[in-house]
Amino acid sequence: MQLQLEAGYESMEGGVCAAAGFSANGCNCGLNPDKNKNDLGMIYSGRLCNAAAVYTSNRVKGAPILVTKKNLEATGGKARAVIVNSKNANTCNADGEQKAWRMCELAAGQLRIKPEEVVVASTGVIGQVLPIEPVESHIAQLAAGLAPEHHEAAATAIMTTDTVKKEAAVSFELNGRTCHLGGMAKGSGMIHPDMATTLNFITTDAAVSAALLQKALRDTVKVTYNCLSIDGDTSTNDMVLVLANGAAGNEEVSEEGPAYEILKKALYLVLLNLTRMLAADGEGASKLLECRCTGAPDFETAVTAAKSVISSSLVKCAMSGADANCGRILCAIGYSGAQLDVGRIDVELASAKGRILVCRDGNGIAFSEEAAAEILSEDEIAIHVSLNQGSASATAWGCDMTYDYVKINADYRS
Amino acid sequence: MQLQLEAGYESMEGGVCAAAGFSANGCNCGLNPDKNKNDLGMIYSGRLCNAAAVYTSNRVKGAPILVTKKNLEATGGKARAVIVNSKNANTCNADGEQKAWRMCELAAGQLRIKPEEVVVASTGVIGQVLPIEPVESHIAQLAAGLAPEHHEAAATAIMTTDTVKKEAAVSFELNGRTCHLGGMAKGSGMIHPDMATTLNFITTDAAVSAALLQKALRDTVKVTYNCLSIDGDTSTNDMVLVLANGAAGNEEVSEEGPAYEILKKALYLVLLNLTRMLAADGEGASKLLECRCTGAPDFETAVTAAKSVISSSLVKCAMSGADANCGRILCAIGYSGAQLDVGRIDVELASAKGRILVCRDGNGIAFSEEAAAEILSEDEIAIHVSLNQGSASATAWGCDMTYDYVKINADYRS
Repeated sequence: MQLQLEAGYESMEGGVCAAAGFSANGCNCGLNPDKNKNDLGMIYSGRLCNAAAVYTSNRVKGAPILVTKKNLEATGGKARAVIVNSKNANTCNADGEQKAWRMCELAAGQLRIKPEEVVVASTGVIGQVLPIEPVESHIAQLAAGLAPEHHEAAATAIMTTDTVKKEAAVSFELNGRTCHLGGMAKGSGMIHPDMATTLNFITTDAAVSAALLQKALRDTVKVTYNCLSIDGDTSTNDMVLVLANGAAGNEEVSEEGPAYEILKKALYLVLLNLTRMLAADGEGASKLLECRCTGAPDFETAVTAAKSVISSSLVKCAMSGADANCGRILCAIGYSGAQLDVGRIDVELASAKGRILVCRDGNGIAFSEEAAAEILSEDEIAIHVSLNQGSASATAWGCDMTYDYVKINADYRS
Repeated sequence: MQLQLEAGYESMEGGVCAAAGFSANGCNCGLNPDKNKNDLGMIYSGRLCNAAAVYTSNRVKGAPILVTKKNLEATGGKARAVIVNSKNANTCNADGEQKAWRMCELAAGQLRIKPEEVVVASTGVIGQVLPIEPVESHIAQLAAGLAPEHHEAAATAIMTTDTVKKEAAVSFELNGRTCHLGGMAKGSGMIHPDMATTLNFITTDAAVSAALLQKALRDTVKVTYNCLSIDGDTSTNDMVLVLANGAAGNEEVSEEGPAYEILKKALYLVLLNLTRMLAADGEGASKLLECRCTGAPDFETAVTAAKSVISSSLVKCAMSGADANCGRILCAIGYSGAQLDVGRIDVELASAKGRILVCRDGNGIAFSEEAAAEILSEDEIAIHVSLNQGSASATAWGCDMTYDYVKINADYRS
């Protein structure tokens, strides 16, 4: 997938270790019976980091979420390490918090830091007791192998039904210093916009105050992860974490202004590209869908309409069949709850193969079915919805629905 | 499917013509190229009827909805006939209202009634111009064949992706007279609770005031059709219509009391059974899912949680795979928006094969996977969610998600 970048930001390798001072590792500890699949990951910064995080809004919250929140409260928003496992979400278990805290203790013991300085996360099956022995028996090996070049081992450790690892990183100039910001994410089902989506770990060597880091994260999540839907299900374990260790040596960004905007843009570009990777690798997906809604009276209207389109099962199925069914797009806008005049809506479908108008002034129009099918045969499809009733806009991301979504989820636990 | 009835109500044949004084018919007029599939239907009562209706809340409304609303306003809630077509929704077309009104004129011409006394409805593809010639050329034949025994011809004329026709009717005693109430419905995709769902035509020979009929309909839809979700997409053309012609000769029910309750129960039983039929025949469905939520602080909480469970793609996929994945059920309750204590929830799965507890006090518990798979192998599955924090309850209906849902919707228009 082609990264979307802007002038002044260079793409780079390294994922969660692109920023100076971060190391990572991953291994198979046995939670996953497939010995070739990593299931335990760690990220570490010797320098104490300012941490910012957003969590799922699901009332059922994974035990790791609760423990992480407590830890960051206890340290006043500081952290040095992340321990994360896949295959088991450690959620809806009577001993969940105990186990999540134990993971912090195990990581802290190896790293000689306080357990409160560890962020813990889990992803996988909900409602099954997490066996802690595999973590206990592999924590020393995991910590011993921490290295900047092991970012991939960590990125693969958080994968569940993902078919590819998701990493992105950029370098940029901030007050004369070269800074780096990168991260890793996992999908790819139980994804719906609400506060945050999936597990995402972002690191930067830029120095930034905890308060501004939190503000930048909250604002950026709103226009990236919160505009992503794979299947309408909001997970219990969602978390986006950003760690900033200040190793780049720039003067700490502690107030809004040009430096803050540069840093925030870096965060946006990394989250944007991870969002697109998550959408493209949605469970069973064969196509990335991007709905851009323009001409809205305000952002809220634009984002509500765009999210509704990419969340619609019927639109998703039509796109998998390369069927230019504009009625379903209008229908999804109509029930979205957005306050708008449906009689002014134009809809255009586009891809690398070209673009075609399928709806004008809220009505379907005649178009070449052959040309439309050709356009929709691509694996990145843009749905342009022009509301023609204002100047605000928003973009939402999703994927088509295929047989494989059903196949993957009909028997996920086994 | 076994009808669910109560004492005092007898099931009967006849569908939309079970009530005295109603006749119906259906034919293939050529909108559907398959000559063996009816696509045009008519219902008629010589006696003027009190009419009650609820419509979709989608902002994109089909032209027939707009014309029907105007007609019922013009007549003060009276009607004598219904004209309905499938294959084309006559929605998002520049000439939609003109065509819908033309359908009323054509029906009225044959029946020698006013066009305003005709209810018009359409279902099918959105955003394609409705050819009116097929209706013009077949309206005489359609009207000539009106007969009580042709209820099935009408019931099949409204089917789109439905695999079976949906009809239900009951007889009951009202102030010493035998009354009848029956109807027909169509599914089976683009179904989500919001005001009303799909096309539903109900008739009764009971005499009842228009105001009370509307109240009974509104209250009953709330606990039947509004608790049904197939795919989360609210159609543009939804309508539930009830026509009451008074042919039973009972004293008109014009105020709340025992007679009103008897009539309302008849309406409830017919809508309940049609709802279950719609759920069981959801697009691609192999199983009917019923989520009963009890022990809620209020109805709203109960219905919000129950709807969220049966709407979850992940729960639907798990059920199709007979996978007792209780985590997904808790997850769906958690993000439903219902204000509740997740730590008190018990979940039980049940079918004709037995029942099994899979979650207690918000935590997954150990259970026999074999016994659970056996229970989930049935084609009617009940999910019992006990919130244990009140005495209100609600039920919601849906279906599992299979490969066939994707197959049906990947190329619906062709």
